[in-house]
Formats: sequence, C-alpha cells, structure tokens
Amino acid sequence: MNLSIEIDTTRSAEVIDITSRIAEALHEAKIFQGICLIHALHTTTGLIINEAEPGLMQDMLRALEKIVPARAGYLHDRIDDNAHAHLQAMLLGNCVMVPIDDGRLVLGTWQRILLVELDGPRRRRVHLQVLS
Amino acid sequence: MNLSIEIDTTRSAEVIDITSRIAEALHEAKIFQGICLIHALHTTTGLIINEAEPGLMQDMLRALEKIVPARAGYLHDRIDDNAHAHLQAMLLGNCVMVPIDDGRLVLGTWQRILLVELDGPRRRRVHLQVLS
Amino acid sequence: MNLSIEIDTTRSAEVIDITSRIAEALHEAKIFQGICLIHALHTTTGLIINEAEPGLMQDMLRALEKIVPARAGYLHDRIDDNAHAHLQAMLLGNCVMVPIDDGRLVLGTWQRILLVELDGPRRRRVHLQVLS
Repeated sequence: MNLSIEIDTTRSAEVIDITSRIAEALHEAKIFQGICLIHALHTTTGLIINEAEPGLMQDMLRALEKIVPARAGYLHDRIDDNAHAHLQAMLLGNCVMVPIDDGRLVLGTWQRILLVELDGPRRRRVHLQVLS
Repeated sequence: MNLSIEIDTTRSAEVIDITSRIAEALHEAKIFQGICLIHALHTTTGLIINEAEPGLMQDMLRALEKIVPARAGYLHDRIDDNAHAHLQAMLLGNCVMVPIDDGRLVLGTWQRILLVELDGPRRRRVHLQVLS
Repeated sequence: MNLSIEIDTTRSAEVIDITSRIAEALHEAKIFQGICLIHALHTTTGLIINEAEPGLMQDMLRALEKIVPARAGYLHDRIDDNAHAHLQAMLLGNCVMVPIDDGRLVLGTWQRILLVELDGPRRRRVHLQVLS
C-alpha cells in the first residue's frame, strides 16, 4: 500500500508536525495494522520523531545551525547555496518507521512525527508505505 | 507480532546494550525469520547500533554533551529542563531495524543494539515489531 | 529474500554512491515490489540517503571531522585508534529503507544511497533484505 502526502513549507527552516496528516492518510486508506515506513523524498529535509513543543522546535533549528553553520566555505555552495541544509539533513535522516496497531500510530506520549525543512520554502513530498 | 521490553536506567545519561534482551524476547516468541523493528517510545533516548566497548560508550556520551551542551539557553528549558536530551536524541534517532535469520539477529561482528539514555534515570520502554 | 553486496573502500574516509549496486542486486533477484532494508554490518561506516554531488561528498566528510574530530582524547582510542569513526557513524546511522515500486527504488530526484566509510580502507558488507 503506497500513499503520499504533500506539505507546503513556508520558511527557509522550520519544524512541522505531520503526525495528524499521516494518521488521516492511514485512516482514509483504512489501514488498521502493520508498520508504516515514512520517507521524505528530499535531500534537504529531515524526518524525525520527537516532541512538538514550539520552544523545542526552535531549539532544534538553532542547534542544527550551530552544529553545521550555513555558508561556512562548503564546496557544494559553489553549485547550489544549500550545503548546510544537506549536511543537517544527513545528521537527521530522512526515514522513520512507526507501527500501526488497531488503526493508531504506536507512538510514546510525547512522540510526534516531525518534518524538518532545512532549505525552504518548498512543496515537500512524504511517501508512506505500509506493510501489513 | 508485537513485543516490548522495559529497561530501568540508573543514571542521567548512559549507554545500555539491549541486544541480549531483544534476542531473548524474540526467542521466547519463537520468531525465526523476518525483520525486527526496534522503536524506543521516548523523546529523550536514542536507539543506535554500534560497538558496546565500555570506553566507547563513555566517549559517546561525552561527544553528545560536546555537540549539544546541556543548559545552553534553550527555549524548551523554560518548560522542562531537558532540551539537550531531546536535541541529542534527535541526532541519534529512535528506531533501528535488524533482520532475523534462523532465529538470530543479523548483526556485524561488533554491532550491538544500544539504548542511549539522555535524561534518566527512568523506566524506558522499547517496542519490537516483527515482520516475517 | 536476503542479499548482500560487498564494497572495497579505498581511503580512510570516503562517501560512496552504492545506489546502482543495490538496484542491480534487486534486478538480478527479480524483485519488483516491496521495501528494501539496507543495513551496513559495521560500526565505523554510515549509511545515508542524500545527494551524490562530489563537492557535497567532500563537505560531508569535513563536517563530520569538525563535529567529531579524530584523536581528541577518546577512551576507545586506547584500545583501537578509531573512536571518531564510531562516533561519526553513531550520528549517521547504519540502516535505511527504500520502497521498491515496479522494479525501481523509490527515491526523490536527488536522492542516492550513500555508504560513508569512516575508518577505511576496508572491505565492507551491506545486507539487503526485501519485504514484499
């Protein structure tokens, strides 16, 4: 079972909680059991599971900017001015998996599925594949 | 097939080899073939595959503390004093997958499944889901 | 379905695009549909999905060296002189999953599957497991 969702990001860098979008897509497809592979089809976004507290979402972006600052003499910036976004995405990863049980995503109390835009704003596509 | 294991961590930050706990759970459930999705249900732990050498396990915690120092003016610390733990967890990820072949976890010579406690001590839960 | 590929790396640190090697292995095994779990069986390599632009591949190695410098007083270096490689691998992760649809890996325009050698040169083995 293949599904995908599109997210229009609105800033150069932002963290977006896509949990309810994914839950809706699974609900519409009447999927009740299995594992959902969630895969961002981009090289300058991250896909992570963490808490969606607004202050923390800002902290995430600041921490990434501190770990991999923009425009720090990267070779890739000669071609495309977004090496930092690729490098930050490399640290986050672009796929997560979440079990589905009885029609619900199996997540801990504070866990949310977060798309991390690192080179927006853009239309981003997240691919869902369910194994049941 | 859904299983879960609980781990009581004993320090604020520590690396715990949970490979044998997972192998036992699979053995008890008589699972011989498939893929095991291993998923920590928390936002301040990491789940990784690496070597369980005691010195290296200390190095991991020190490196994480250096990359994302505690209490460095994070917004989330105004709510809950553990932003660094969330941010370190973000870099590690919270799920890994390991193939199971002939009743054994398919791991390289030095590979072990490690739970990284970043905001303990706490009772932590790791969810196992097997696809066969 | 279990497959594996071997890659001989040629430097101490390098990024290698293994997408076509994986596509070939799936083609030879006549796999048309499913999910491919790709798992590096090592603790000093990373496995990521990102762009295979040569400048960026250099930037990746430089960024990792900056985030986790080699020989910075690690405990593990007393046993084996490669703690930095383990710690860099910890940040990258060692497994990715890619859907397969109609005989092709489902990847975004710029996405390639990259093996990141962090302690070479060595013969490295990547395990593929397909769920269909």
